[in-house]
Amino acid sequence: MKGPKISEAVVRRLPIYLRYLNELALSEVQTVSSQALGQKLDLNPAQIRKDLAYFGEFGKKGIGYDVGYLIEKIRHILKLDQMIHVALVGAGNLGQALSNYNKYLQDNMKIVCIFDASPAKIGTTINNIEVQPIGALQQVVQEMGVRVGIITVPASEAQNVANRFVQAGVEAILNFAPAILKVPSEVRVHYADFTTELHSLAYYLD
Amino acid sequence: MKGPKISEAVVRRLPIYLRYLNELALSEVQTVSSQALGQKLDLNPAQIRKDLAYFGEFGKKGIGYDVGYLIEKIRHILKLDQMIHVALVGAGNLGQALSNYNKYLQDNMKIVCIFDASPAKIGTTINNIEVQPIGALQQVVQEMGVRVGIITVPASEAQNVANRFVQAGVEAILNFAPAILKVPSEVRVHYADFTTELHSLAYYLD
Repeated sequence: MKGPKISEAVVRRLPIYLRYLNELALSEVQTVSSQALGQKLDLNPAQIRKDLAYFGEFGKKGIGYDVGYLIEKIRHILKLDQMIHVALVGAGNLGQALSNYNKYLQDNMKIVCIFDASPAKIGTTINNIEVQPIGALQQVVQEMGVRVGIITVPASEAQNVANRFVQAGVEAILNFAPAILKVPSEVRVHYADFTTELHSLAYYLD
Repeated sequence: MKGPKISEAVVRRLPIYLRYLNELALSEVQTVSSQALGQKLDLNPAQIRKDLAYFGEFGKKGIGYDVGYLIEKIRHILKLDQMIHVALVGAGNLGQALSNYNKYLQDNMKIVCIFDASPAKIGTTINNIEVQPIGALQQVVQEMGVRVGIITVPASEAQNVANRFVQAGVEAILNFAPAILKVPSEVRVHYADFTTELHSLAYYLD
């Protein structure tokens, strides 16, 4: 159930809305205007209204959005109302840092297994998850129903890990290695590469 | 010299083109077609031609793009033909992982200083850079002519670090903390937040 075709830019803003809405909910704020959202998130209120209008008529004129209802809707749109298991390959500094983020992830999305090729890493524990040998990936991923894979290995190893994820049936990959991955078209890849982030930021320097 | 107004989506693809073009140059490939670029990068060749046309007429019909010339142009557009100094705050796992990327960055963009608030971290060395106390940020950033700041501190500390960067005259910030930053409009902020990456990826699951 994909709903309407939504641009990637909008999909990337939804988690940002969600994070702030969750903050508001924690402070027991019940409604929020697109103006207030825009000010906090540094976005044009008209843009926010347009983004949210893709998904239905959430807002009420002169009142704003019901925070709880909007959280529920965005969670549903992002499929965060399902349990989503994530696997991570690469137990280096970056992998360890990412596994720390489990506490920031929604309750229904979490890293459940970690793999590495290095004998020195295998058997160690990161945030209560034991690092397993890369050879166990396919079996563990299938047993645990992992749908999303994270790659934090060196560039030279990234395609090999991607192949293993694809063979194991993973549907989406978040790749932190500075390498372009070849995967079947039904597997979604997002690149979270630090170098491209920094290089695109340089464009905006005066 | 900003040139024409280019969408963020295009700016984010340029470093990806650049990375692959650099690979081609290393293999002494002299020309490349938009078809070949598209196949490697999993992008529509027409999209690639459109992206590159923003910047001038680089390609030649039936021959393709001159690899060396295109590298030079993209580096110029991204301002990577200038020396750009980067500062990093937060010497935890993520900060250490990022400072490792110096070797992947173009020769003219690099992390030149690292700061942390923890006495246990200050004075230690990461990739030959000594970790300095956060209180020294303004002076060091100004002395070293740092233009870009990276934030890898906990969410609760991120705004404080951003304020220090802004006061020190940093022009652009790459923020890895799961927090929305308030900065003056002339400072560009990119969010490289792992949780929003994963949440937006979930949207594409079936």
